[in-house]
Amino acid sequence: MTKAALLLTIAVLGGTGKEGKGLAYRWAKAGYRLLIGSRSSEKAVKVASEIMELLEGSSSVVGTTNLEAAEQADIVVLTVPYSAHRETLENVREALKGKLVVDVTAPLVPPKVSRVQMPPAGSAAQEAKEIVGEDVEVAAAFQNVSHEHLLGEETVECDVLVTGTSKKARTEVLTLVEAAGLTGWDAGPIENSVVVEGLTSVLININRLYGSKHAGIKITGIPDQSTEDA
Amino acid sequence: MTKAALLLTIAVLGGTGKEGKGLAYRWAKAGYRLLIGSRSSEKAVKVASEIMELLEGSSSVVGTTNLEAAEQADIVVLTVPYSAHRETLENVREALKGKLVVDVTAPLVPPKVSRVQMPPAGSAAQEAKEIVGEDVEVAAAFQNVSHEHLLGEETVECDVLVTGTSKKARTEVLTLVEAAGLTGWDAGPIENSVVVEGLTSVLININRLYGSKHAGIKITGIPDQSTEDA
Repeated sequence: MTKAALLLTIAVLGGTGKEGKGLAYRWAKAGYRLLIGSRSSEKAVKVASEIMELLEGSSSVVGTTNLEAAEQADIVVLTVPYSAHRETLENVREALKGKLVVDVTAPLVPPKVSRVQMPPAGSAAQEAKEIVGEDVEVAAAFQNVSHEHLLGEETVECDVLVTGTSKKARTEVLTLVEAAGLTGWDAGPIENSVVVEGLTSVLININRLYGSKHAGIKITGIPDQSTEDA
Repeated sequence: MTKAALLLTIAVLGGTGKEGKGLAYRWAKAGYRLLIGSRSSEKAVKVASEIMELLEGSSSVVGTTNLEAAEQADIVVLTVPYSAHRETLENVREALKGKLVVDVTAPLVPPKVSRVQMPPAGSAAQEAKEIVGEDVEVAAAFQNVSHEHLLGEETVECDVLVTGTSKKARTEVLTLVEAAGLTGWDAGPIENSVVVEGLTSVLININRLYGSKHAGIKITGIPDQSTEDA
């Protein structure tokens, strides 16, 4: 990671949820400036101070509204439930020009969450791209990482597949993956998001059938590389 | 595995290809009766005798046409390139009633094989189901297993995700996965095939970028179960 990366500000929209809070914690710990966004800035302020406390004050984490967080950030990470996906993006759209959006959404449709059911755009990330328009890069990542592991110090036994609208976008996200202490892989263009997002339903199915709570995936067969980040 | 399973006859359509030959070898070795199907029965006979030779005669492997193989089998495994997918299924459709079809096809569209491009049905397996109709169960599996490893004795470092039109179909295929010496997982309904098939494009992308030929996946986070089959 370059020093420049550490001066970046990351907004985590829906950052009061478990997944968002866990990712924000990991990035704040790595030295990024963090903005926790929420519909209620009050809730966001509370979560921000909880993260600061976990890190014993040696970090910059601020809670605010989703819109303000998006406006002030270099990178905008979206960790809302799929039911709030479109609305959240439409509300902050004007603040996203020229920025990178990292979509963590798995488009689960209750009650059949173990069945892959993608939106007409093909995936949540492609839907996000349709909403945010031309000047915004969109990547998809982190859908499959169990939030329970992010707030601890333990090694996360789940690789992160990263898709995105450009090689540059994917590379930027892979830096964030590494900063969070995880192993990431360039999984190709945004059209491949259906695999990454859909894997969430497959893993939910495996959790149910095999008595686990944290099924994940690891990429195998890469000579000497998967351990390079360790 | 029950003894009854070992009396089953498996037809591998397109069994003269590398993936088909590798799977046929593994199953013949496990005691199943094998029929190698091909458009050219001559080629199929040749591959069948090659497999018999590898196994030193202690197996039953017969080469014939795709249609005859499908007619005489209990389970029909499809390992043709996607360009021959529809034609092959339409040619053998009448022979499939009441049987299980295991679709190994990844619907790659050259030249962009590292980009997920699914057929209108949603996946090759769902397209297969549309073609074969009501009385045939369809499962998808084995798309991501590198053929180089199947003809050897080495452990295959790639799990097999199994989707299918019913729990019964998936369970039958999981028995075949185990018989081939691999670890399999019930990945849910046939609608989830897009993930399993699309993963092939993601792994091709990873192979290209990270200097590997055999990128695969392993399911993690399952307490004590992933090693049970070893």
